[in-house]
Amino acid sequence: MEAAYARVRAATEGLVAGLPAEDLAVQSMPDASPAKWHLAHTTWFFETFVLGPADPGYRPFHPQFEVLFNSYYESVGPQFSRPRRGLLTRPTGAEVLQYRTHVDAAMLELLARGGPAWLVERVRLGLEHEQQHQELILMDLLHLYAQNPLRPGLRAEAAPPSSRPAAPLRWCPGPSGLREVGNAGAGFHFDNEGPRHQTLLRPHALASRCVTNAEYAEFVADGGYRRSTLWLADGWAQAQAEGWTAPLYWYMSQGTWWQMTLGGPRPLDPHAPVVHVSHYEADAFARWAGARLPTEFEWEAAAEGAPVAGNFVDSGRLHPTVADAPPQAEPRPAQLFGDVWEWTASAYLPYPGYHPPAGALGEYNGKFMSNQMVLRGGSCASPRDHLRASYRNFFPPRARWPFTGIRLTKDA
Amino acid sequence: MEAAYARVRAATEGLVAGLPAEDLAVQSMPDASPAKWHLAHTTWFFETFVLGPADPGYRPFHPQFEVLFNSYYESVGPQFSRPRRGLLTRPTGAEVLQYRTHVDAAMLELLARGGPAWLVERVRLGLEHEQQHQELILMDLLHLYAQNPLRPGLRAEAAPPSSRPAAPLRWCPGPSGLREVGNAGAGFHFDNEGPRHQTLLRPHALASRCVTNAEYAEFVADGGYRRSTLWLADGWAQAQAEGWTAPLYWYMSQGTWWQMTLGGPRPLDPHAPVVHVSHYEADAFARWAGARLPTEFEWEAAAEGAPVAGNFVDSGRLHPTVADAPPQAEPRPAQLFGDVWEWTASAYLPYPGYHPPAGALGEYNGKFMSNQMVLRGGSCASPRDHLRASYRNFFPPRARWPFTGIRLTKDA
Amino acid sequence: MEAAYARVRAATEGLVAGLPAEDLAVQSMPDASPAKWHLAHTTWFFETFVLGPADPGYRPFHPQFEVLFNSYYESVGPQFSRPRRGLLTRPTGAEVLQYRTHVDAAMLELLARGGPAWLVERVRLGLEHEQQHQELILMDLLHLYAQNPLRPGLRAEAAPPSSRPAAPLRWCPGPSGLREVGNAGAGFHFDNEGPRHQTLLRPHALASRCVTNAEYAEFVADGGYRRSTLWLADGWAQAQAEGWTAPLYWYMSQGTWWQMTLGGPRPLDPHAPVVHVSHYEADAFARWAGARLPTEFEWEAAAEGAPVAGNFVDSGRLHPTVADAPPQAEPRPAQLFGDVWEWTASAYLPYPGYHPPAGALGEYNGKFMSNQMVLRGGSCASPRDHLRASYRNFFPPRARWPFTGIRLTKDA
Amino acid sequence: MEAAYARVRAATEGLVAGLPAEDLAVQSMPDASPAKWHLAHTTWFFETFVLGPADPGYRPFHPQFEVLFNSYYESVGPQFSRPRRGLLTRPTGAEVLQYRTHVDAAMLELLARGGPAWLVERVRLGLEHEQQHQELILMDLLHLYAQNPLRPGLRAEAAPPSSRPAAPLRWCPGPSGLREVGNAGAGFHFDNEGPRHQTLLRPHALASRCVTNAEYAEFVADGGYRRSTLWLADGWAQAQAEGWTAPLYWYMSQGTWWQMTLGGPRPLDPHAPVVHVSHYEADAFARWAGARLPTEFEWEAAAEGAPVAGNFVDSGRLHPTVADAPPQAEPRPAQLFGDVWEWTASAYLPYPGYHPPAGALGEYNGKFMSNQMVLRGGSCASPRDHLRASYRNFFPPRARWPFTGIRLTKDA
Repeated sequence: MEAAYARVRAATEGLVAGLPAEDLAVQSMPDASPAKWHLAHTTWFFETFVLGPADPGYRPFHPQFEVLFNSYYESVGPQFSRPRRGLLTRPTGAEVLQYRTHVDAAMLELLARGGPAWLVERVRLGLEHEQQHQELILMDLLHLYAQNPLRPGLRAEAAPPSSRPAAPLRWCPGPSGLREVGNAGAGFHFDNEGPRHQTLLRPHALASRCVTNAEYAEFVADGGYRRSTLWLADGWAQAQAEGWTAPLYWYMSQGTWWQMTLGGPRPLDPHAPVVHVSHYEADAFARWAGARLPTEFEWEAAAEGAPVAGNFVDSGRLHPTVADAPPQAEPRPAQLFGDVWEWTASAYLPYPGYHPPAGALGEYNGKFMSNQMVLRGGSCASPRDHLRASYRNFFPPRARWPFTGIRLTKDA
Repeated sequence: MEAAYARVRAATEGLVAGLPAEDLAVQSMPDASPAKWHLAHTTWFFETFVLGPADPGYRPFHPQFEVLFNSYYESVGPQFSRPRRGLLTRPTGAEVLQYRTHVDAAMLELLARGGPAWLVERVRLGLEHEQQHQELILMDLLHLYAQNPLRPGLRAEAAPPSSRPAAPLRWCPGPSGLREVGNAGAGFHFDNEGPRHQTLLRPHALASRCVTNAEYAEFVADGGYRRSTLWLADGWAQAQAEGWTAPLYWYMSQGTWWQMTLGGPRPLDPHAPVVHVSHYEADAFARWAGARLPTEFEWEAAAEGAPVAGNFVDSGRLHPTVADAPPQAEPRPAQLFGDVWEWTASAYLPYPGYHPPAGALGEYNGKFMSNQMVLRGGSCASPRDHLRASYRNFFPPRARWPFTGIRLTKDA
Repeated sequence: MEAAYARVRAATEGLVAGLPAEDLAVQSMPDASPAKWHLAHTTWFFETFVLGPADPGYRPFHPQFEVLFNSYYESVGPQFSRPRRGLLTRPTGAEVLQYRTHVDAAMLELLARGGPAWLVERVRLGLEHEQQHQELILMDLLHLYAQNPLRPGLRAEAAPPSSRPAAPLRWCPGPSGLREVGNAGAGFHFDNEGPRHQTLLRPHALASRCVTNAEYAEFVADGGYRRSTLWLADGWAQAQAEGWTAPLYWYMSQGTWWQMTLGGPRPLDPHAPVVHVSHYEADAFARWAGARLPTEFEWEAAAEGAPVAGNFVDSGRLHPTVADAPPQAEPRPAQLFGDVWEWTASAYLPYPGYHPPAGALGEYNGKFMSNQMVLRGGSCASPRDHLRASYRNFFPPRARWPFTGIRLTKDA
Repeated sequence: MEAAYARVRAATEGLVAGLPAEDLAVQSMPDASPAKWHLAHTTWFFETFVLGPADPGYRPFHPQFEVLFNSYYESVGPQFSRPRRGLLTRPTGAEVLQYRTHVDAAMLELLARGGPAWLVERVRLGLEHEQQHQELILMDLLHLYAQNPLRPGLRAEAAPPSSRPAAPLRWCPGPSGLREVGNAGAGFHFDNEGPRHQTLLRPHALASRCVTNAEYAEFVADGGYRRSTLWLADGWAQAQAEGWTAPLYWYMSQGTWWQMTLGGPRPLDPHAPVVHVSHYEADAFARWAGARLPTEFEWEAAAEGAPVAGNFVDSGRLHPTVADAPPQAEPRPAQLFGDVWEWTASAYLPYPGYHPPAGALGEYNGKFMSNQMVLRGGSCASPRDHLRASYRNFFPPRARWPFTGIRLTKDA
């Protein structure tokens, strides 16, 4: 566990290594947080849920960090106002790194001593939690950079063009009838992935890959953002209120589409999956295409047993790219993991028999089961070893700043 | 059909008979509409979807009413701004009644001539639509009256106290396993009630009746509105932002709870079902009570085959009242229909294979399948003959001004 | 005084005689009030400041009207929320008229008995107050009608076209040097018109008449609303935020300007004074025209001694019209009174030595001396006998719904 | 001029020397700007108004800085959104310093070559402009620090306690009658300080010093923030909406008042002038004290001829302190310059005959002559050599984050 701990913590810091202090400090919108806040909050998590409970004599690094870096755990205590996180210029980024060093030392010492099972579980949860914030750091930085007319990028080598054309889309029949879904395995999974339970799948077929930019640009060119009847009412209202005419981060320059990425501005890559669309746009696109979004269980049934392979944060691309061509004669869905989180048609609700765990960590997932939609599969900003077929991500249907894309489905 | 037409149209006007013109004209919040607007919009519906299509020579009563009284049909054309409906002092209430008279005459003449099946179906849809607006008129009037410190009522005889104590709550086991749900019958039903399809029910038991005011007052007294861990995060945020401390329309006067009703102010009736709670409050109450809300299909399975009996608008009470005591030895859920709409744990989503009908009427239900929760059963403000076991009502989880209540459920 | 009382009170009711109840009930924006509220508030004024103090046994007509119809007198007690006045459908318009009848009877009885000087003064203040609300009723009704695509008018005979062309604009030199301003006369005046005091006037010349629609249309056509350098910064920001492209109530129809008036829609009258412009627009126009707005004392010096003659509410036109041609060889400013309130360059501030009167009536004027500009002269919606040379009207510089216009001035 | 240039530019950088990059990057509210933005904007000013016009071949340091660092000069071109300045993490603080170095080199070379009179005047204007931004940097940093529960300070040695008690307040009669005001001198002054002109002063007496914290605390203790009749209506509304109970930056801790300062948290210094009050609070305090605020000309008459001496940014205190005791038998107002800007009763309006200069620099002052009040005298955050008796500062009456205080005046 020490090795895993050291590796995950270092990976977080690696994401922002070399960045100017300004980039870590600023909050670009209420939904986002400063990178510095993520670095501190994930550290606070270990202090609050591991070091404190494990050692009654543990003294927190700073008496006020409990409030400043508590995200939303009402059971732990009050929280500094979320939309004002960017006003905290102190602690500085450098001081937050000292905080990390301090907690890491205490954690590694604790792990070296070994500990009871609950402690090991908590550490594992803390590491998975930190991996979630790794992706948030990338999402939030991209959003921040996109506000700046200078269009800075995180890394020049990010977001290279796709190496070849996308394969034609094929329809891949999925299983139907009663089927077990959800996670009951021995490995780590979040509480919201269980209990494992039966569900009833209808005959259907999944698209062999995600929708590409070229395909989405057709929808745009066909008046997709001007035809209200393609849209859910809430989506149409949102699109009008905010003047949507294309995915977030697309912009026209001299007659062609460009896209803001973590590599900076890039000509739109026609073969890469469309990314940074809301559920509303995904749903409207599917309607326009004569298809629909998959349910989360249709997706899970396709993914179960498939290897967690694809374009993750580990590749360093930090941007979706063309799917591997499916070699098989009998088509199976490719690109299930990585590249883009895939919006499903499923509301984020508890599985039958779900109960959040007791205590403050019961607030981790359960209380958000309202007004959100499930996404599956992971993205180019997710760590590979953080994902699995039963993983449930969730965002409000209006969210566009995550690395979100579209897989079509059809009734069979 | 002429008789049905005349009856439903007269019922709408009966709701507001004798009211001062002011009560019909004012809009108390963006979610509500002036009663006068409801009277005109339901008339516009017949003009637009029946008279126009049936007779190419039909001349609308007024050339601008198409815009003023179009609610949300983008396919029909532009709509007057919804939150500004209350600014339309003209047409006056009297002129709207003339509009109704004019359209009624044309409709009755048309119905007398008979017509093709599609026309009869459209008329039926128009009448069901009008019944929905009957309930909206009552909801909106109550909200309007509640803003006025003079606390006017609609009718003095409304909201009498319950005639006897509520029976103790019992748990009624429901069916489990694969089961057909949804409406495939020959009778009228909305598009969102189908297709009929199989679903998988888990072992569970429904409460024998709805939660009473006395039970809900215990939750309030036990700090229900101050304990964040009982709440969904969105609900807690809403409750804090709006300062919720009790259901909408409850207020304390000299140490006891009172409630604003369509009969005016009333001491809180301990035996009547709690009403005017949001989904968030229903969910928090259920958590506090160690139970949960039913899924829409658990509810439908219990209601299928049961008579549509209970306290509807037809009783004139216009307020929920104590449930009939279940006479049976083997308990079955009572009070399923009428009194209060029952929040379910189900998000309002399309059934498998659902497609909205072609044309403007496809906008009736389908485009609202986002960010809403399903309610079942009907209320004291619903017409009895408008309801059935497969009926799906829907509101955003924050809505409190409908006649909404709570039925508990437990895993078996 | 009984005659004056009866006359003024009747005039108020005459303004709204024959209107549907809806027109009296609705509030079209937070700055406006329902006509019904004005009818009740002016009555409350007599109840609160005359009947109550004069007779300790006086019982108010309704115990809750003290709160409902208190506008802003903190010393009297709490006030019903101003932007929510339109939600009070009760008391109805008819009930408000009963309230008026009741108070009028008590007032006339009191006046018949005679009374001390303070009481007579209070009654006079109440009548002047009521005349101010007469103008507000007309302003607020026009604003209400203008929200309605049906464009109803108050009276068909209102706003006839001007009878002849406007005379060419001439410059009329005004007095300079030390001069007395403010009201110290024996006649009625508001506290904010005094103390009379010396002021220093610079050499200047006033325009012989107000700016006409034709002149203002040139400014519009010359890009007046697109050239930021003509505007005060706050005005430019307001104009951009609200999309101003012409005075309030102007609209283009088939290539020509129309104007919404109390007579309904009218083709823009080129000879009539421009009306419904903010201070920002008046100031920008003046800058464009190479002139400036007058100070309030330059205006007062020109008006002192001039007869209060012009186009007032008494004419029934309810809209500005062309100025009388100045017959004199030596030009003197015409159209000083009536037609439009003239924006001045003076902030609304207390005169040297000003102190508001003691008691609640001290809140009448003094507390508003902040963020407002002075207007002079009265409008087509003001009663003639309500005006005088020393009268100070005031509105925030963004206000456009009063009958406001422009008189140019130049340094000599 | 080279020496002055170098000195003023260095002083700006000295203010933020040693600060972490985060402190320079963040914007704490729309009215404030990041310190980094001030550093860049003042540099842009020289590039735009000096280097460009002086040398047609001058190449701007960065092609997009013209937009990013244009504050409000519409004549120059578009401006990056003011409330979003804090989102520009690039250029970083270090890059902004490079920008400064680059422009400084070009400026010094230009100044060494000498230049026409207009150029020298522009440079002087640029330096006075930069001194204004020096004060803004301090105001904005204090506001930023005050948002942080860690309560960081700028410099530990700032805001020491007063060295002795404040002298008793005495009343100092001022001149009356006709008097010249405004600046017509040969020295530098802003356009808004002229033309010099006659004004009429009434008999009055100024307080010998500013209102102290102890005196203001009495007002607070006497219910000053709960008694609406002491307040202007707009001020009362603002105070209620924002929950004002004391000056900005005061807070109660264990029963005593503390104050947030640029030295960090400090116990309230009873002898120091109250600071960070709005015009509304100053006006309410004066009313409570039976006095009033001075007009800007009463203040100017007292200050004309007096030495510009007092507590300025040059002292390094960065906080107001007790006034020097007036040694004289015949009292004269002390503390006129420095410590706190003194709210006057005068609206910020153009002097008679004022015309803004031609060109973009005409936007410097004139377009803000609306909805603001004049302040006089300078503060503990102003450079001494930036001030003079005719200097007119201005802020909206709600502003509290400048170093604003109160001097009382009485009619004689």
